[in-house]
Amino acid sequence: MKSAVLSIGTEILFGQIDNTNSKFLSRELNNIGFDVLYHYTVGDNKYRLKETIREIFQKCDIIITTGGLGPTQDDLTKEAIVEVMEDKLILDKNILDNIEKYFKKRNKLMTENNKKQAFIPSRGIILENNYGSAPGFILEKKGKIIIALPGPPFEMESMYSNYVRDYIKKYSNKSIYYKFVKTVGIGESEIETKLYKLIDEQTDPTIATYLNSDGVYLRVTSKRDSEEEAKKAVEGTLNKINDLIGEYVYETEDISLSEKIVALLKEKNLTISAAESCTGGLFASSIVDVSGASKVFDRSIITYSNKAKVEELDVRETTLQEFGAVSDKTAIEMVEGLYKKCKSDICIAVTGIAGPEVETSKKEIGLVYIALKYDGKIICIKETFGVIGRQSIRNRSVTAMMKFIYDTIGDNYEKR
Amino acid sequence: MKSAVLSIGTEILFGQIDNTNSKFLSRELNNIGFDVLYHYTVGDNKYRLKETIREIFQKCDIIITTGGLGPTQDDLTKEAIVEVMEDKLILDKNILDNIEKYFKKRNKLMTENNKKQAFIPSRGIILENNYGSAPGFILEKKGKIIIALPGPPFEMESMYSNYVRDYIKKYSNKSIYYKFVKTVGIGESEIETKLYKLIDEQTDPTIATYLNSDGVYLRVTSKRDSEEEAKKAVEGTLNKINDLIGEYVYETEDISLSEKIVALLKEKNLTISAAESCTGGLFASSIVDVSGASKVFDRSIITYSNKAKVEELDVRETTLQEFGAVSDKTAIEMVEGLYKKCKSDICIAVTGIAGPEVETSKKEIGLVYIALKYDGKIICIKETFGVIGRQSIRNRSVTAMMKFIYDTIGDNYEKR
Repeated sequence: MKSAVLSIGTEILFGQIDNTNSKFLSRELNNIGFDVLYHYTVGDNKYRLKETIREIFQKCDIIITTGGLGPTQDDLTKEAIVEVMEDKLILDKNILDNIEKYFKKRNKLMTENNKKQAFIPSRGIILENNYGSAPGFILEKKGKIIIALPGPPFEMESMYSNYVRDYIKKYSNKSIYYKFVKTVGIGESEIETKLYKLIDEQTDPTIATYLNSDGVYLRVTSKRDSEEEAKKAVEGTLNKINDLIGEYVYETEDISLSEKIVALLKEKNLTISAAESCTGGLFASSIVDVSGASKVFDRSIITYSNKAKVEELDVRETTLQEFGAVSDKTAIEMVEGLYKKCKSDICIAVTGIAGPEVETSKKEIGLVYIALKYDGKIICIKETFGVIGRQSIRNRSVTAMMKFIYDTIGDNYEKR
Repeated sequence: MKSAVLSIGTEILFGQIDNTNSKFLSRELNNIGFDVLYHYTVGDNKYRLKETIREIFQKCDIIITTGGLGPTQDDLTKEAIVEVMEDKLILDKNILDNIEKYFKKRNKLMTENNKKQAFIPSRGIILENNYGSAPGFILEKKGKIIIALPGPPFEMESMYSNYVRDYIKKYSNKSIYYKFVKTVGIGESEIETKLYKLIDEQTDPTIATYLNSDGVYLRVTSKRDSEEEAKKAVEGTLNKINDLIGEYVYETEDISLSEKIVALLKEKNLTISAAESCTGGLFASSIVDVSGASKVFDRSIITYSNKAKVEELDVRETTLQEFGAVSDKTAIEMVEGLYKKCKSDICIAVTGIAGPEVETSKKEIGLVYIALKYDGKIICIKETFGVIGRQSIRNRSVTAMMKFIYDTIGDNYEKR
């Protein structure tokens, strides 16, 4: 079934907020076998909103909208939808009760305009909002389906997961199965050269390549009548890919490297701590992002200043003077100092230049050292990311740290 | 001039990457007076791409595309654009030279398919890519303008800033001026009730409200014939807003709270350190995100485990046992321990429950304590964010920390 995601809100067109809703819904719809053909964003303008919904319905059968269900004057999603779908808005007493309760529970003043949220399409299926005051709804007409969800991501995601996924599954007559192939150390065009024949020869599974912050990903997707068939097809293609570029593949699951690492640490009963300079807490934050990280993560010492490096991690002042804060010597002393404090099974330290300022003219932006201590041994690696932006250097440093840990304790690194 | 941003790439429709390009370009286009009416995303499909470009040109005069300029078979942006704009692709020797140099410089193999990137529209204005191998271009036909930029954000942003901004400025005959009003402690509907008459009465400046992770923002925007006029109009409206909800306003600049805080710390010559538990480095990371943070930020001690809290920050084991890791007592001992180590002018500590697991049944998800030491005094505040998702609780905690610091050293907090 052909589908589209329609985000509604002038703030998106002003570039003021990240549109994470489209991403979430696209993943979800793809996972249950829908083709997502378009993303659209329009502002809080009823005329353009109606026009866009009509335009999408000429090409797709199902639209999921997000945003514009709130209490304010510029929330016009419901009004636009009922006009296109030839329905009308009616007051729902139950919803009004719920909204009143919502405000009472939070000790907040319920202003008059909040009543707007209790008006819903007369033919609509109402979707309860467990975390906010605006309900969503599903409305169908002549085989076209529109599903209106609230804009705040947490409200939207929970509404989708609780009610929408199961409701729309019945419209998908295909089974999708896909696997990711995550690679490292090889460029996108080189991969394509190696896989050219394979990609060219087959229409299902499809192989899509794209560049991610932690290397080139391949997505191998099959859409068949049964999940079993699709899975078999994908696995066949995975084997062929492995024959051609196996030495660059480090992961074939759709989980992040940090999730994988937390799972591995739990499984092997290992603890981890970090000492961070240029990444400034981003490594720790990526680990803590994983629910249950508290079982394996002990601490991270962010020593941004040289003073902190000396005081917290016993880095020698002479090392900093002679070799600089961004050097293999400093990285190694950081990891040694960290280990002395925490005795975690894995200790990892990072120091680098994220720019735009450079420590000395001898060192260039993007230079990063990572030292890792495990099982009594310390290994230090050097990365040169180049001038790719402050944020990108920090992200790539964290990925390099994750990969380093994975290579140290993962199961399949021996093959390289 | 009416404009749209068109993102190209099946990976976006699969929900595999964040579409940050639309956000960047929207901000930029708005800033120079363009109306961004739509965002579109289509996959790497030439038919749909052409159809979408034609559709947008019925409603807009200028389209900026991102993505699909690379070397692989599914990069079809140029092919689609020249067909719609009735042009053809020709090989550009200079670009080919540059691509060869790009690969040589990086010691990477240049595969045959990279030559594809040297083909450009015969009537196009070429835009150099300083950080990647795919050039962009500008192509016009009968008053319609299309600008094709590469997909990787860093390449795209630098190409836009270096060449595109100045080129398209001439098409904007209006001057835009806007200001943000960032509020805290008041809901969106309550703000609208208070500002109802003001919003209803005027068409320029416009006042848009939206909910952000750190409170409700208002954007006051005026579009006039001269910047001076627009600025005057916005300032008039700002005064009216201040009369109505001034006590909730904490910022009227388009900078993040962390940028504001780093600037304030620099100005007042103060240093800062943190001790983080539930935020797991996110506070430090937000500070380090600001270029030049090294002048004020000393360290952050992320004590995720109780063991680390005791060893790093001298939190008493009896405190942890009696009151728990998430308590005002623990937060205060964390900040005391931190200060002992670093003597930074501002020390801030945070401990809370991000969920989904809960420490004890007596405490609920979303409970967060923040202790701040400044000028010899420690103040501890309690926040209850509720069950809003692990990531949101961590983000809101960081915002609460920033706000706490701002309230402590900022200039306008006395008014509350």
